[in-house]
Amino acid sequence: MAVSFVMRKSAAVRFRHLFNRSIAVLQNHHQHKHQIHHHPISSSTYSSLSSPLFSSRFLSSSSSTSMASSDSSFPVTVHNINPKVLKCEYAVRGEVVTLAQQLQEDLKAKPGTHPFDEIIYCNIGNPQSLGQLPITFFREVLALCDIPSVLEKPETPALFSSDAIERAWNIIDMIPGQATGAYSHSQGIKGLRDTIAKGIEERDGFPANPNDIFLTDGASPAVHMMMQLLLRSEKDGILCPIPQYPLYSASIALHGGSLVPYYLDEATGWGLEISELKKQLEAAKKDGISVRALVVINPGNPTGQVLSEENQRDIVKFCKQEGLVLLADEVYQENVYVPEKKFHSFKKVARSLGYGDNDITLVSFQSVSKGYYGECGKRGGYMEVTGFSAEVREQIYKMASVNLCSNISGQILASLVMSPPKVGDESYELYCSERDGILSSLARRAKTLEEAFNTLEGVTCNKAEGAMYLFPQIKLPQKAIEAAKAAKTAPDNFYCRNLLHATGVVVVPGSGFGQVPGTWHFRCTILPQEDKIPAIVTRITEFHKKFMDKYRG
Amino acid sequence: MAVSFVMRKSAAVRFRHLFNRSIAVLQNHHQHKHQIHHHPISSSTYSSLSSPLFSSRFLSSSSSTSMASSDSSFPVTVHNINPKVLKCEYAVRGEVVTLAQQLQEDLKAKPGTHPFDEIIYCNIGNPQSLGQLPITFFREVLALCDIPSVLEKPETPALFSSDAIERAWNIIDMIPGQATGAYSHSQGIKGLRDTIAKGIEERDGFPANPNDIFLTDGASPAVHMMMQLLLRSEKDGILCPIPQYPLYSASIALHGGSLVPYYLDEATGWGLEISELKKQLEAAKKDGISVRALVVINPGNPTGQVLSEENQRDIVKFCKQEGLVLLADEVYQENVYVPEKKFHSFKKVARSLGYGDNDITLVSFQSVSKGYYGECGKRGGYMEVTGFSAEVREQIYKMASVNLCSNISGQILASLVMSPPKVGDESYELYCSERDGILSSLARRAKTLEEAFNTLEGVTCNKAEGAMYLFPQIKLPQKAIEAAKAAKTAPDNFYCRNLLHATGVVVVPGSGFGQVPGTWHFRCTILPQEDKIPAIVTRITEFHKKFMDKYRG
Repeated sequence: MAVSFVMRKSAAVRFRHLFNRSIAVLQNHHQHKHQIHHHPISSSTYSSLSSPLFSSRFLSSSSSTSMASSDSSFPVTVHNINPKVLKCEYAVRGEVVTLAQQLQEDLKAKPGTHPFDEIIYCNIGNPQSLGQLPITFFREVLALCDIPSVLEKPETPALFSSDAIERAWNIIDMIPGQATGAYSHSQGIKGLRDTIAKGIEERDGFPANPNDIFLTDGASPAVHMMMQLLLRSEKDGILCPIPQYPLYSASIALHGGSLVPYYLDEATGWGLEISELKKQLEAAKKDGISVRALVVINPGNPTGQVLSEENQRDIVKFCKQEGLVLLADEVYQENVYVPEKKFHSFKKVARSLGYGDNDITLVSFQSVSKGYYGECGKRGGYMEVTGFSAEVREQIYKMASVNLCSNISGQILASLVMSPPKVGDESYELYCSERDGILSSLARRAKTLEEAFNTLEGVTCNKAEGAMYLFPQIKLPQKAIEAAKAAKTAPDNFYCRNLLHATGVVVVPGSGFGQVPGTWHFRCTILPQEDKIPAIVTRITEFHKKFMDKYRG
Repeated sequence: MAVSFVMRKSAAVRFRHLFNRSIAVLQNHHQHKHQIHHHPISSSTYSSLSSPLFSSRFLSSSSSTSMASSDSSFPVTVHNINPKVLKCEYAVRGEVVTLAQQLQEDLKAKPGTHPFDEIIYCNIGNPQSLGQLPITFFREVLALCDIPSVLEKPETPALFSSDAIERAWNIIDMIPGQATGAYSHSQGIKGLRDTIAKGIEERDGFPANPNDIFLTDGASPAVHMMMQLLLRSEKDGILCPIPQYPLYSASIALHGGSLVPYYLDEATGWGLEISELKKQLEAAKKDGISVRALVVINPGNPTGQVLSEENQRDIVKFCKQEGLVLLADEVYQENVYVPEKKFHSFKKVARSLGYGDNDITLVSFQSVSKGYYGECGKRGGYMEVTGFSAEVREQIYKMASVNLCSNISGQILASLVMSPPKVGDESYELYCSERDGILSSLARRAKTLEEAFNTLEGVTCNKAEGAMYLFPQIKLPQKAIEAAKAAKTAPDNFYCRNLLHATGVVVVPGSGFGQVPGTWHFRCTILPQEDKIPAIVTRITEFHKKFMDKYRG
């Protein structure tokens, strides 16, 4: 079922609808018309319609947990929890993934029961889970910071590079009392923020202030913090791309705001049109929605496009003109694969236009989970917060304080990715070869998979200029759509489930990200190791052919 | 100003009141009557009244950030952000701490300008910031997990203990694909949850299910998650102790619920009376508040009491009878300093009563930040979630999924604290001596500080049976109260500011935790290193004498 962007006025009705659906496990998936309404959508409408199978996961996982069966015998039930939680959806770890985990357990318990011998998780940007190795220098520094006593031992230079040892000393000396196990300043260790600010300055050619940096446990908590700050009620909206990374819809739902969609244009390589932004903003205003911010994901997730500098300038001007906070998701800033495109931070673009703190309110999100580093498990990241008043900054600081600080290893790693080894450092050569090896391989994988998808009947796939994903469109035969309906699921979900059962490859249905109603997509990461790509291509190709043969009608 | 627990009906009026106060920087601090109303208080009432100086921090910190001065020229202002954020307060990193940071900068820039040469941060349970060393074994394992390539090097056994090497191998082998840098399962790595469940079983003598464990970045995000789940509106209440750890009031405020206070009885060593719980629950019900959960902090923060098993049984029965979720903050489970008391987990107590998953809904919070480990900067912790229906569990899982996973080092450390070295392991002896050294020293420090406080004029201080804090009551002379009023601050805040200026010792005013109106307290950690305690005692004693001499009237 597509994201049918119908604005509904009553949250209560919507909730009841959602809840009934969750009990009935989708009985009426296709009764909504496939049409685009250029209206803002409250979080509840969005998520209730974007979720292919709201209640399926608990059905599958309940057997392994220690609890009784009847919801109503407990004081806490789905009838009396926060309805915003019910409304929130996160397809990247949704139904298809749960199914994959079951199949994996099957494979372990009874090898040979499926037509594949391993599950390949292409559902999530989690490079190291698919075999990408960490950057040696980064890990050396992290390990040494964990155990400073080792730094002075005679055996240490045999195990660690000299610049890693030096860097670890520098970092430990930055920490008040050398206490690597203490809570830090709520924004993160000052010396690490200095390093990050310097890294931003080198990247952009414009000043960065360490007091503008808030270190966070990955980018997700930073996004939540901004949503919590900005959203007062359903009448507050956030302009988000469609397709979008579902953290945004989930966070908007959890914080009770409205997602105001703007469509990326698939026909022009997922182009971001200012006219579309304007149209959606005006429509939202007409509906009484106060639009607070614009989310831009660059390079795009799930869409992989890299914005041109000119386009970015127009976006910045639009935000200034309309008084919107620009929430710039720049976590894929190192992931650009085509020579004709380059990453430009929105802060650099704004400053190049002569816009200072008084002109534009801009938050840039960065993470250690992406790039060539791919250190998802470290939960490191930061947001650079500019153009807020002192009073509001104080409130952001207070929110950070309530959570004390982000984890110190993640903080250290965030400083390292913004300040990697330099020419002349012992690790420099190894670092470069590791980084370039990963990035060039990702570029090849993106190209191979894109070309493979484009050979499939009814499939068109834009280039992944950056990020870690492809988001092909599938024109599904009517018979497949009917089969999905009979199976009480959305057509894209139906396709992805079939793909999983046939190949072991896990991808995420487009409905988890949003798509033009009546179109069907899936998101597939480019992350499987290169030597596995040919087999994956073969398996997907064979599956697709059989699927189309079966349903071609 | 005391926490004057007056239930006000209009949130808008309250907000305006708060906001005006924030602009005027407290002009009418003492116009509220000092009386206990046994009524539930909405988060907004609570926090607006518990905050000694709402707006002071931004005034002091604004100079160091890059932004313009006028709030109204920005699209985001304190007038149009989420009012729940404005309402939230967190005194542990509040005004007195900001003042301390300024003094510290002063000291650095101009040594000798203050009557002390260092700031001693007794405001927060942050042991390693005050010189506590990490447990060697834990750090060895963490470092080795960060850099598995070192595990096989010939030099490694000279640097790391054999059981740390073995444990690191075990842990790495638990991780799918040995990918220590990958996002894990949303609840945390399964093998680590197995280890933790086993540790809980050994602690309690009752089964624990690894699928009931959710690993989190410290206990705070787990508490937020439960508040987000349970709170639908101001009409949902959470029973919280007064005094309480302000994470609870802050989280309830951020999630828009009502804090329903129950008073701990200072006269009986901060006793928790079931009759008080009943009274407050009934009063809340009469006010139309649906009370969802009871928070119990055991050992107590800021109060340091350790509950008796009998008392805990009564609490468990009360929760079962009233259909309340029991939110058990058990992060100080290793911090018990008196031989006559012992920590018992609420889960053990419930199971001893024969209560299973169908009888009581119980969440236990644990953290790597406290205990003898004190690894605050690692942001590790877990919640054990029992007695929820499958449907609600599914919602909790979904909330965890949106944030992907907690940091892996924190996850590993959580497994280590629940499964430390055993007899026969190479590290066992060192581990025991480190652990026992820290815990016995903490016990001595608690006793010394308690005795010192009790010698001060007008000060009474209950014993710290456990946790990391003392919470002495000060009977302030009328003249001091008037001086505080003239200084536009609360009397306890006034005292703490004066203490800081005179001694460099940072403590937190009682109003940040809640206290019986008209009484004044402060919270002081027992964490300064033992060799510093005599000097601290001398400085505080001298200050207090002078303060009382000045204001005795």
